[in-house]
Amino acid sequence: MTQRLRVAMIGHGFMGGTHSQGWRTAPRAFALPADVDMTVLVGRDPGKAAAAAERLGWAEGGDDWRSVIERDDIDIVDITTPGDSHAEIAIAALEAGKHVLCEKPLARTIEEGERMVEAAERAASRGVRAMIGFTYRRVPAATYARDLVVGGALGTIRQVRAQYLQDWLVDPQAPLTWRLQEGGSGALTDTGAHAIDLMQFVTGRRLEQVSGVLDTLVPERPVLLERDGLGGTVGEETGRVAVDDVALFHGRFDDGVLGSFEATRFATGRKNSFRFEISGELGAIAFDLERMNELQVYDRTAPAGRQGFTRVVVTEPEHPYLEGWWPTGHMLGYEHGFSHQVKDLVEAIVDGVPLHPGFAEGLQVQRVLDAVQRSAAASSVWTPVGG
Amino acid sequence: MTQRLRVAMIGHGFMGGTHSQGWRTAPRAFALPADVDMTVLVGRDPGKAAAAAERLGWAEGGDDWRSVIERDDIDIVDITTPGDSHAEIAIAALEAGKHVLCEKPLARTIEEGERMVEAAERAASRGVRAMIGFTYRRVPAATYARDLVVGGALGTIRQVRAQYLQDWLVDPQAPLTWRLQEGGSGALTDTGAHAIDLMQFVTGRRLEQVSGVLDTLVPERPVLLERDGLGGTVGEETGRVAVDDVALFHGRFDDGVLGSFEATRFATGRKNSFRFEISGELGAIAFDLERMNELQVYDRTAPAGRQGFTRVVVTEPEHPYLEGWWPTGHMLGYEHGFSHQVKDLVEAIVDGVPLHPGFAEGLQVQRVLDAVQRSAAASSVWTPVGG
Amino acid sequence: MTQRLRVAMIGHGFMGGTHSQGWRTAPRAFALPADVDMTVLVGRDPGKAAAAAERLGWAEGGDDWRSVIERDDIDIVDITTPGDSHAEIAIAALEAGKHVLCEKPLARTIEEGERMVEAAERAASRGVRAMIGFTYRRVPAATYARDLVVGGALGTIRQVRAQYLQDWLVDPQAPLTWRLQEGGSGALTDTGAHAIDLMQFVTGRRLEQVSGVLDTLVPERPVLLERDGLGGTVGEETGRVAVDDVALFHGRFDDGVLGSFEATRFATGRKNSFRFEISGELGAIAFDLERMNELQVYDRTAPAGRQGFTRVVVTEPEHPYLEGWWPTGHMLGYEHGFSHQVKDLVEAIVDGVPLHPGFAEGLQVQRVLDAVQRSAAASSVWTPVGG
Amino acid sequence: MTQRLRVAMIGHGFMGGTHSQGWRTAPRAFALPADVDMTVLVGRDPGKAAAAAERLGWAEGGDDWRSVIERDDIDIVDITTPGDSHAEIAIAALEAGKHVLCEKPLARTIEEGERMVEAAERAASRGVRAMIGFTYRRVPAATYARDLVVGGALGTIRQVRAQYLQDWLVDPQAPLTWRLQEGGSGALTDTGAHAIDLMQFVTGRRLEQVSGVLDTLVPERPVLLERDGLGGTVGEETGRVAVDDVALFHGRFDDGVLGSFEATRFATGRKNSFRFEISGELGAIAFDLERMNELQVYDRTAPAGRQGFTRVVVTEPEHPYLEGWWPTGHMLGYEHGFSHQVKDLVEAIVDGVPLHPGFAEGLQVQRVLDAVQRSAAASSVWTPVGG
Repeated sequence: MTQRLRVAMIGHGFMGGTHSQGWRTAPRAFALPADVDMTVLVGRDPGKAAAAAERLGWAEGGDDWRSVIERDDIDIVDITTPGDSHAEIAIAALEAGKHVLCEKPLARTIEEGERMVEAAERAASRGVRAMIGFTYRRVPAATYARDLVVGGALGTIRQVRAQYLQDWLVDPQAPLTWRLQEGGSGALTDTGAHAIDLMQFVTGRRLEQVSGVLDTLVPERPVLLERDGLGGTVGEETGRVAVDDVALFHGRFDDGVLGSFEATRFATGRKNSFRFEISGELGAIAFDLERMNELQVYDRTAPAGRQGFTRVVVTEPEHPYLEGWWPTGHMLGYEHGFSHQVKDLVEAIVDGVPLHPGFAEGLQVQRVLDAVQRSAAASSVWTPVGG
Repeated sequence: MTQRLRVAMIGHGFMGGTHSQGWRTAPRAFALPADVDMTVLVGRDPGKAAAAAERLGWAEGGDDWRSVIERDDIDIVDITTPGDSHAEIAIAALEAGKHVLCEKPLARTIEEGERMVEAAERAASRGVRAMIGFTYRRVPAATYARDLVVGGALGTIRQVRAQYLQDWLVDPQAPLTWRLQEGGSGALTDTGAHAIDLMQFVTGRRLEQVSGVLDTLVPERPVLLERDGLGGTVGEETGRVAVDDVALFHGRFDDGVLGSFEATRFATGRKNSFRFEISGELGAIAFDLERMNELQVYDRTAPAGRQGFTRVVVTEPEHPYLEGWWPTGHMLGYEHGFSHQVKDLVEAIVDGVPLHPGFAEGLQVQRVLDAVQRSAAASSVWTPVGG
Repeated sequence: MTQRLRVAMIGHGFMGGTHSQGWRTAPRAFALPADVDMTVLVGRDPGKAAAAAERLGWAEGGDDWRSVIERDDIDIVDITTPGDSHAEIAIAALEAGKHVLCEKPLARTIEEGERMVEAAERAASRGVRAMIGFTYRRVPAATYARDLVVGGALGTIRQVRAQYLQDWLVDPQAPLTWRLQEGGSGALTDTGAHAIDLMQFVTGRRLEQVSGVLDTLVPERPVLLERDGLGGTVGEETGRVAVDDVALFHGRFDDGVLGSFEATRFATGRKNSFRFEISGELGAIAFDLERMNELQVYDRTAPAGRQGFTRVVVTEPEHPYLEGWWPTGHMLGYEHGFSHQVKDLVEAIVDGVPLHPGFAEGLQVQRVLDAVQRSAAASSVWTPVGG
Repeated sequence: MTQRLRVAMIGHGFMGGTHSQGWRTAPRAFALPADVDMTVLVGRDPGKAAAAAERLGWAEGGDDWRSVIERDDIDIVDITTPGDSHAEIAIAALEAGKHVLCEKPLARTIEEGERMVEAAERAASRGVRAMIGFTYRRVPAATYARDLVVGGALGTIRQVRAQYLQDWLVDPQAPLTWRLQEGGSGALTDTGAHAIDLMQFVTGRRLEQVSGVLDTLVPERPVLLERDGLGGTVGEETGRVAVDDVALFHGRFDDGVLGSFEATRFATGRKNSFRFEISGELGAIAFDLERMNELQVYDRTAPAGRQGFTRVVVTEPEHPYLEGWWPTGHMLGYEHGFSHQVKDLVEAIVDGVPLHPGFAEGLQVQRVLDAVQRSAAASSVWTPVGG
């Protein structure tokens, strides 16, 4: 009889919506080795949680995550709350024997992250799995990029470039939301973390040293009166922006390769342009999340005169995750990564397929972020990544 | 109390999958004016239907569409079967008082289509709605193109170009599937129909005359032994291809504007490249379904020296259907059009919002296809669209 | 001792400028087998001709082409006048034993063209060469496209598409220049001729039948008061446009392949977008003159999963004509084709290298244009190309 | 009577070819305020100089630059030799009262550059002009970018990004040419200098501080036996690469804006991709030298829903330098910048139009390069630009 995995999701903001889409869709798109039940959605406000459960397709709503993670009829805890609650919930859930999927960032601090990794290691010895949610690894073009690079298609890697460009703070009147205040996250920890994780994933290397600079281009912003999506309405009063809105850094990978990184919310006209380019001795790849179904591939071993960047539309049966979707040339969107995440998590739990990224990988990304911050505070001197 | 709409879907092929995704997702993404129940999925084989119902999220499976459309607990019949059964099912469902969503093409013949339109008109007088499924109208960039054109942003339209390019028949060993045999559909009726419908939708004009040519570039193909997706394995035996694989035609719209159309399965390297470009006195728009989140817009009223095609990423709150999805810059995929279709149908049924495209629009597209075929059979002479 | 070729150029309009650039530059860029003298430029007005000679680098000006073509110190006559004088000048020059380079179109009428071909054939028997100026054959990316196609890289050709898109008539107030009046040339004969020639050149095939339609979207335009470049100032008075401004046609090549063609001056936002795409069984190529240093190449024999259109930057030493220019990645422009034309003509004259396109090729293009016009006048029926 | 400017060019390598093209073409394309004579080309070897003069269109060859710069019949000295001779020749020419055009880089050292600037200042007081050859300022799209930015179209500048990507060293067997040895120039001083100059030019700002890293990815390369273009044939022996092949740095402009810079010879597949993107409060611009006729412009003041990067084809009469060239949509190439340079220099000399960039600007770029090198040698600490 098919195993049944019962899921509790904590949180129902933007990430609660995308995760729900993943839980709802993955079992329809893929032949999963287990059935999945969207058992309970937990929020702070019981009324809002019930409404969100109804809207997002969860069987019930709840407002007490502590009791929910203790329930016998829960197998997986999916944490989509802001980062300041990740450690507490994740550790408790792991100790309660539940598999955990935790949105990035792993934690607020290195110390918190270390405790989470320890909890995950203890749980692993009991067969309990913990995954951190870097879903861009599961955009088929990015996964395929990894396959090409790790498979040697680029030969020796020579350079790495990654830019995560957004522009939602270009307007100096954009409001001071929670993300921009203490406890929020700047460009570095929000989107820079994706750039670090993905470049490490695609190259199979780790950053060992960094040299960086952070900036807050608009240091005072109007206080938010009423929230609406990622923005909202504002008044006369202003407050101090507590986080960076531009992060630039160079990094040295464990094989000596140099990388160049940028994360910004001031790239006018770039909505969600997460781009990378990896140059190798035999070829190169380039990607832009604004054209997420395409991977540019350069092959230096092609005949002279016919070399160039090839625009691969990553919707072929040969490409990762495509077995679940539509025929060739039918595009996937942002949310598909969340279905792929569910697929991979369920397969890891049921079939013991290796899981990635685990909490240790999430912690290592935190360590890189921390090193960038320390370098930035020290006139950009090269700073080793701890751990 | 919220109204509840109970849906029966007939068919569970490729289109059954995409329609199910629409029914499952629309109520989560949009604040629909009614609840939706995925009540029953009907197929010819009861075991396969039950399995498909389970996989695609329908409450039950069934194998007798006639009895299902009579059920009191069914409000909507969604027809995703091949075109040769559309007329029979749709007319029966409408007569049973069920709202109908029918995949394109409307029918096999003009005569069948006329009977369907008559049935839809009779049903309409009783408040029953009938929609034909040209989902590309609901790709936000295409809908937005319509808004721009009909809103006058391009001024007087001067020219229309549409190409629907695929390449799945380039290989002469690609198998003789049902689509390529009698009762199947050629490039003209399959993807050419999309090009006709969308260009009429975006311009708000109708084609009145056409001059065209059809070709079957590979007239004999290996007989299919076992089907797999859109292809499959083949043997030694070959059979005759009964449909066109390239259709080229020119059309004259009701305001005299010339259009140029192509539908082909031999455009090597183009997987699902449905492109159009509309040139107007004040501006132009260009679109390619392989970059479906982008619309290229040219504004001749912009300052001299700054004119050019603007790549609009159609993921802003101002854009059609985007209220249901993710923040700016987060891409949508092929299947989202099916959620938008469900949204529009439910709003039409419950709120009386005008519905498009209705069966009459589907029939008019059939009439254009028929005129192209007649022109092609008569040395491409200009041929009026009947009706 | 190196041979010396002395050139007389007739005409000094736009084409006189580009041809002069070619004569001036080719001997610097390439190791030509002869020295080239820019001996005399001939115009109708002696003062203007002298000024143009000075400005464009010709040793002297003149106003009597008949006497110039008789001069012993002239070896080559380069005709850049409007098409209505081509036949007279070219035939006279050939009879005077001068090599001729004649701008396209070859002639006003088939009959004129036939006399020019006869003159060229008589001259050829005396070692005198005649070339017609389709310079787009000499854009390196187009020449390379030909090399690939004729070399078999695309396998059996399946479809041809060519569009020559301009927008200089979109404004209904654009003036009625000589090009738009009797004796001028419409979209078909002006840019459509390029599309026909280039597609025949690249494929190595000839069009045998066509089915087309012509349109004049703005039939009355303000009369030009003073000319300025391709435009000028206008008054209140209007006159009738005597030529087509949109031409659409389908063509059948001698191997049965279908081609789709468009030439228009109403493609809003397209300045000089001459695009083509050729689909073959093993691959495809695509080109756009607005990105003239790039050729898109698709290789169906590449590994599954890595196929896509490769953007080849055609500035490598392996590419045609690049031996004369700058290092890899340094772009060429519009005018380089005119230097390549000079190179090829000089090599044909001195080294006996086969010359293309000769007058017979120019005449054949005229015959295709004529067939399109006849088809358009007969409700687009398929019409054989004469000759 | 029209003034006559007589030019001596020193050097006849790659840059000698491009400068000659500029001298030869500018007077034909533009209505210059003086006539230009290509009087003498000087090289070290008299035979080679004579041959180059013949080939490149100079009236005579010479081998003694010292005597040539003293000649009364020389007005302008154009220095295209490698950088180690710039100071000596330029200072001597200026002291002899000749206008000087000097290829970049200005000099080998800051000290040399300072002496050149002093010589230029002394000469200026006598009406003698000195220009340094950063021709990318004269690519019309780049000049137009400057016009837009300085004209305020982008509002307050927020970020600057510039990457100069080449790949000619990706092959570890690429030979050890003079550029890679002592006295040659690395990626930083060769192409990084262009990035610095152009970003300062376009923004109208100067870099004040930098933090950077340099790397030599392949430290040993085969010794060159015979030179051929930028490459050549090699043997078994290897030698040490004395210059960087990757330079990454961050810079702070005088208004506090952060810039991100890269210059590399290891960007596999990028032939001459000099890209920049400037983000401002009201808009953004993006450029890539591999598509040098296009400028991407984003306008944040456009209507919501219609914003996006506009691909401006910079070939309109409104665009810089286009008055000299072909109609709309006819592309320019790499070499046109050299004609524009001649035009600007001649106008500066004759009409007293302000000249840019002068030697002081060249020196300031050298100072930035020097600061990057010092930062790289000090663990990337932020380092002030001297001067």
